[in-house]
Amino acid sequence: MAKDFTSRAKDYSKWYNELVVKADLAENSDVRGSMVIKPYGYAIWEKMQAQLDKMFKETGHENAYFPLLIPKSYLSKEAAHVEGFAKECAVVTHYRLKLAEDGKTVVVDPDAKLEEELIIRPTSETIIWNSYKKWIQSYRDLPILINQWANVVRWEMRTRLFLRTSEFLWQEGHTAHATSQEAVAEAEQMLHVYGDFAENFMAMPVLKGLKSPSERFAGALETYCIEAMMQDGKALQAGTSHFLGQNFAKAFDVKFATKEGTQEYVWATSWGVSTRLMGALVMTHSDDNGLVLPPKLAPIHVVIVPIYRNEEQLAAVSEVALKLKKELEAKGLTVKFDNRDTHKPGWKFAHYEFKGVPVRLAIGARDLENGTLEVARRDTLSKETVKQTEVVDYVSELMDKIQENLFLRANQYRIENTHQVDTWDEFVEIINSEKGGFVEAHWDGTAETEEKIKNLTKATIRCIPLDALEEQGKCILTGNPSSKRVVFAKAY
Amino acid sequence: MAKDFTSRAKDYSKWYNELVVKADLAENSDVRGSMVIKPYGYAIWEKMQAQLDKMFKETGHENAYFPLLIPKSYLSKEAAHVEGFAKECAVVTHYRLKLAEDGKTVVVDPDAKLEEELIIRPTSETIIWNSYKKWIQSYRDLPILINQWANVVRWEMRTRLFLRTSEFLWQEGHTAHATSQEAVAEAEQMLHVYGDFAENFMAMPVLKGLKSPSERFAGALETYCIEAMMQDGKALQAGTSHFLGQNFAKAFDVKFATKEGTQEYVWATSWGVSTRLMGALVMTHSDDNGLVLPPKLAPIHVVIVPIYRNEEQLAAVSEVALKLKKELEAKGLTVKFDNRDTHKPGWKFAHYEFKGVPVRLAIGARDLENGTLEVARRDTLSKETVKQTEVVDYVSELMDKIQENLFLRANQYRIENTHQVDTWDEFVEIINSEKGGFVEAHWDGTAETEEKIKNLTKATIRCIPLDALEEQGKCILTGNPSSKRVVFAKAY
Repeated sequence: MAKDFTSRAKDYSKWYNELVVKADLAENSDVRGSMVIKPYGYAIWEKMQAQLDKMFKETGHENAYFPLLIPKSYLSKEAAHVEGFAKECAVVTHYRLKLAEDGKTVVVDPDAKLEEELIIRPTSETIIWNSYKKWIQSYRDLPILINQWANVVRWEMRTRLFLRTSEFLWQEGHTAHATSQEAVAEAEQMLHVYGDFAENFMAMPVLKGLKSPSERFAGALETYCIEAMMQDGKALQAGTSHFLGQNFAKAFDVKFATKEGTQEYVWATSWGVSTRLMGALVMTHSDDNGLVLPPKLAPIHVVIVPIYRNEEQLAAVSEVALKLKKELEAKGLTVKFDNRDTHKPGWKFAHYEFKGVPVRLAIGARDLENGTLEVARRDTLSKETVKQTEVVDYVSELMDKIQENLFLRANQYRIENTHQVDTWDEFVEIINSEKGGFVEAHWDGTAETEEKIKNLTKATIRCIPLDALEEQGKCILTGNPSSKRVVFAKAY
Repeated sequence: MAKDFTSRAKDYSKWYNELVVKADLAENSDVRGSMVIKPYGYAIWEKMQAQLDKMFKETGHENAYFPLLIPKSYLSKEAAHVEGFAKECAVVTHYRLKLAEDGKTVVVDPDAKLEEELIIRPTSETIIWNSYKKWIQSYRDLPILINQWANVVRWEMRTRLFLRTSEFLWQEGHTAHATSQEAVAEAEQMLHVYGDFAENFMAMPVLKGLKSPSERFAGALETYCIEAMMQDGKALQAGTSHFLGQNFAKAFDVKFATKEGTQEYVWATSWGVSTRLMGALVMTHSDDNGLVLPPKLAPIHVVIVPIYRNEEQLAAVSEVALKLKKELEAKGLTVKFDNRDTHKPGWKFAHYEFKGVPVRLAIGARDLENGTLEVARRDTLSKETVKQTEVVDYVSELMDKIQENLFLRANQYRIENTHQVDTWDEFVEIINSEKGGFVEAHWDGTAETEEKIKNLTKATIRCIPLDALEEQGKCILTGNPSSKRVVFAKAY
């Protein structure tokens, strides 16, 4: 399986593209920039969705659904928003096709032109705040805490599976509050939910911070983000949470009567993560043998491969295997017993290794005699012989160990590839090195300097970490004073 | 709550529209034909999704995701399909907006015209079979059993919340098989899954049958359906399952190598249910006091309303209420304790009645003295006094009773409003009567007669029931011979 597979060292980007396709996660469709998410990839996304949805509900949010199509004029109601999204909108102009003159193909029916064009949502602030206007009259109607699971379209010229596609799946939370403080607290809460999910379920360490003004969401007063480091040292923005101030309330004229009887504009947040997380997951843990999945998001936890020479041996092995399968399932694990006779054990070993199944159990004739079996870990590629009587507890505990090991390994990698830098030369050297990584450096706080650094090195400010220390320093480019370090990196 | 609410007898259609909006299930958006599904409505849809998804997985299906946008030319590859859907397609012609000359609004950028227009999927057969072509080479690749949860758009001129909207949410199963028999068995299996879901979860009895040729899905050789009777005697098609033969395999040139080494076209099915089920659910059970929900799909099973005169009484009642809430939750029930002091008990009673919460518990000071409380059923509107020590088991069992009662009541209604008819006069009398209902009558099997009956009475053939008896008879319109009765009704 892994033989026609590019290694990370040889070409990281190619490695990723091949891995996503060969592991049956997704593939490009014939529709420009749109992907097909295949069942194995979608099963991982479903696990992500289920966990995130649980966390959203535990923090008091409800799901709802708003229209896919947005009148063009809505977009221009918020000035920064239209500036940010107009250039990448899919536009619906007609509502009917008709038979062409050849009698076979179809053409757009010119009589079915829409009076006002509709755009496919690139994000739903405008259509949702247009509804909130009807829902909010008084402080009693607040807060509104709503999430939506949806598809969105942003026309992209250069696309990559999961990381950047014209259509992608995501969730977008949209909340409305009576005070600025409450909205800020909500935006921060959701950032922490994302951080918790990334670290404890994806086993992916993240930096939590604020975006610089020039990297903010179009229409936000403040954008919080989580940033992860991939194995090529590049940063990947994995989730964002925006404090929108009163911008959308003003654009859609959404006021509420306060307890005191005055009329005020409503305060807003929005926050989202997308199928991009799938790309982050793949790039954080996987290796030259294929996918590596944290147990908490793996569609299959354990695969059992029988090793046999004849029907009789298969029958004896199967009996043990099926008993184990049942016991492991009772522990909440998903177990696959692959007894197909069309493929050899060696092929199966490589196959499930490539698919990132966390644990493989192999049982052969000798194991039956000895009351043992072989347990192989996907994360370390190590094997151990374990007694059959102990294997259920052993494997069950192994899941936690693998989950933890993946996090620690990724965390160690990030630590090793994060550098504090105080001079421009050092900055350039590290940013341009093969290993790349995060660079903690002082910045004078101006958009101009940020832009210059980007033009000179392709590095951007990934975030101003929430836990950055107050520290007097000098901007690495201009030497102007700075009070805290920000994190620079090249990014996806 | 129910005071500004139209009764079913007065205007059934108005009753439905008001109920959907006033019970916070959904509302019309400003985007023509698109609805906003509000949190309470969406919570019911999520329960439907979760159960259906479980049933699909239990029958061996996996979820995946295919692109929203379909090249226009795909549609015309299957002749009947394009005929059925071209007239209602939303067409994307451009991928960018730009600032208008006024410097404020946006206009479509004429330079961003697509070479080939894209349509928003009205259903996904074409895009999916375009992928299956790449996935299927040999019999070993079959069957493919995939389901997709998605939004689709079919441009509708006259829309009604849930029942007919331009955008709706649904699931669409698309399977590929090596033989015709296997595909037919799949289509029938999924019909039974839908029937099981409708009857055992929605508590909605359904007829299972085949559509007449003229009512088939565009591109199908056979369309199976479930049909339910609403309280105005009209039929509602609640789900369809199609045997597509080799039509899409031929259109997209999808062949497979058989075991014997020959090349054959693949056999297909597709099957779907949509947010239309929400409309069916509402119209099957609800009454002049508002929504009535079967416990298996109710977002809240039990509401506890405290009745008190002072803080001290509230504290005492709350203690009992919170203990009960915990115990009921341990039984798997969702319980709301509404202790808001902004609303009176009478208002709360009416509110939760309108929202269709299956059971209401009221606890007052006298109940504390007597160790009792009041249990009210939403389905029968009856009340009983029950001992606190017995109430958890009582309520838990009540859920099953209510679920069963709703089914039996709806079934009784359907029986009473289903008529066997042998003459045209009787047929017209019943179809045109206020009560309407299902009419079992003989039909000569021709599309011409079907069309005439429709034009004369607005009644259509809802289905040819799978369990229809072989019986010699004469077509009610033409007198020509017929071998079984079909079911006629006016329909949504």
